[in-house]
Amino acid sequence: MNVHGIAYRSIWPVGQRAVGIIDQTRLPYEFCTLELVDAEDMVTAIASMQVRGAPLIGVAAAYGIALAMNRDAADARLDHACERLLASRPTAVNLRWAVQRMRGRLHRLRADQRAEAAWREADAMAQEDVSSNRAIGSYGSALLAQLHARTGRPVNVLTHCNAGWIATVDFGTALAAVYLAFDAGVPLHVWVDETRPRNQGLLTAWELAAHGVPHSLIADNAGGHLMQHGKVDLVLVGADRVSGSGDVCNKIGTYLKALAARDSEVPFYAAVPSPTIDWQLGDALHDAPIEERAASELRVVRGLDAAGRPASVEVAAPDTPVGNPAFDVTPARLVTGLITERGIARPGDLRTLFPEASAAP
Amino acid sequence: MNVHGIAYRSIWPVGQRAVGIIDQTRLPYEFCTLELVDAEDMVTAIASMQVRGAPLIGVAAAYGIALAMNRDAADARLDHACERLLASRPTAVNLRWAVQRMRGRLHRLRADQRAEAAWREADAMAQEDVSSNRAIGSYGSALLAQLHARTGRPVNVLTHCNAGWIATVDFGTALAAVYLAFDAGVPLHVWVDETRPRNQGLLTAWELAAHGVPHSLIADNAGGHLMQHGKVDLVLVGADRVSGSGDVCNKIGTYLKALAARDSEVPFYAAVPSPTIDWQLGDALHDAPIEERAASELRVVRGLDAAGRPASVEVAAPDTPVGNPAFDVTPARLVTGLITERGIARPGDLRTLFPEASAAP
Repeated sequence: MNVHGIAYRSIWPVGQRAVGIIDQTRLPYEFCTLELVDAEDMVTAIASMQVRGAPLIGVAAAYGIALAMNRDAADARLDHACERLLASRPTAVNLRWAVQRMRGRLHRLRADQRAEAAWREADAMAQEDVSSNRAIGSYGSALLAQLHARTGRPVNVLTHCNAGWIATVDFGTALAAVYLAFDAGVPLHVWVDETRPRNQGLLTAWELAAHGVPHSLIADNAGGHLMQHGKVDLVLVGADRVSGSGDVCNKIGTYLKALAARDSEVPFYAAVPSPTIDWQLGDALHDAPIEERAASELRVVRGLDAAGRPASVEVAAPDTPVGNPAFDVTPARLVTGLITERGIARPGDLRTLFPEASAAP
Repeated sequence: MNVHGIAYRSIWPVGQRAVGIIDQTRLPYEFCTLELVDAEDMVTAIASMQVRGAPLIGVAAAYGIALAMNRDAADARLDHACERLLASRPTAVNLRWAVQRMRGRLHRLRADQRAEAAWREADAMAQEDVSSNRAIGSYGSALLAQLHARTGRPVNVLTHCNAGWIATVDFGTALAAVYLAFDAGVPLHVWVDETRPRNQGLLTAWELAAHGVPHSLIADNAGGHLMQHGKVDLVLVGADRVSGSGDVCNKIGTYLKALAARDSEVPFYAAVPSPTIDWQLGDALHDAPIEERAASELRVVRGLDAAGRPASVEVAAPDTPVGNPAFDVTPARLVTGLITERGIARPGDLRTLFPEASAAP
């Protein structure tokens, strides 16, 4: 998508020697790009959330392996890079999917063939992500168009966190539906959850403003009230890991919105590219790994100071005890539908869209 | 309660010429007291949330009328002060209760008797608030002690916003229960919701730290996840207005925690001094006035800068559209019990504790 009139993806190869990323920890206050030349740089970029969003970190890990292969393509180096990247974020399953795919592809090759193959495979994964998101956007925008046709009013979408183009290689997942519907002339408005503690809602507001989509930033606390009063037609979020039975692991607080949606009979959808589905995961509520992140995420808030310079303030003292789970699980019973690149499924019907996965446990 | 070893209430008369308050907009970063000498100062203090918390703003309004009577005790001045104070915050019913009580008491008197009577009545209301909170704390702490006796583990309480001593004249409502249980040796830990957008959870953390009560600050998004995993034994909040049938109007986001509590079978209690009950209110969800506050509350975050000085950062640009409803309504069906100064009632049984209110519509 465009930034200041220039077309960007959120990640791109620089020849076959480096990988370009947007430093998302500095958005929306500064737009900076970085060139990473080493797999360890990518581990740091993922762990520190310079790159974030389940689909993007999958592709980022693939490029991280390509960077590693540039230096040394021996088995030991490949395995080490895979392990380091896998450990950088525990919850998003796309990371495991991407690393397994790269490792599987490269282990079959001679060491001297691996670097070239790694770059080709990472490029292919990036391109598949874009195609997949386009398809998700097309199914999702049809849903928004139907809602508009039914009510005759602008469609009010509530979203949590950032499932936009910068959370993917391009287009986004949940926001792909919004962009395509908006571009097709469906009148709509997006309620943007701030998404504490990391305020990814500000990234969503930044994306929507850049594309001209009407939106309002709200506190994470506000969505239930808005749904009680008929001000939300659809909750639409991304996902970090979805079980085969349709439990949705996503940014902390998603579950609260799903509960409110159910209580006010508002449909709740998650946009889910297939690499986000963990067919091996049984009971997501008890088995999905939930990352506990640093207390500083809650204690320190970034923004702009009075002079318009990036700055931060400490809202709570360093000795304030903090709990900071980064994800929660929305049980399938609260999920109306999952929007995948192959169409929309009720949670119980997810396997019918992906019959090749049915054999898995 | 004590601040830096000195006993404070949150509001106090200074002779009969001024009213002392703690400027709560500067907490927890600075502890400053102010002396207000005019009723308009009190209107500003309530609207800007220098004084806040339903019980406290009722008493603050009473003292505001006393300040007005010092200047001019004619009927027109009394009525004008009452109207101005009533309009300063729309949601907390204690404000209406306090203004009606003062107006009723003073209208019967000659103008030259009103100032003296106003100070006496405001003092009485302050004292009643303290007694009432002590009683609420005693019923609530018994509940916490029972929970501890049942599980043998420290009791994990989750609270939202600040229903502590600074939200009242002293002791607090929800936190009175915590303080009394803690002082009685009941092992407990409090999950403190940050409570965006105004971060009143930081006031709660400040209060609990000062009293030595174990606690953890969490994002408003985290509570549902904690309840799903058995880490919350009780949700305990204050209230700004409660209907006779037990609907609880409280700080925005309370409803989401009540939904999560119900989904995980965690009991949900509100601490409610009787002036918070609006016996005239029928359907709170549709009839309770919900204050919409300024966009700047969401856009600007206060804290301390790198040098430890109070500072603020703008997290969202001034042209970011914002929605900022300040309260929501938790329907009685989600409320386990209401802790009043006369005991604990199920929502449907509230009138049995207050038979004198039964005649009301």
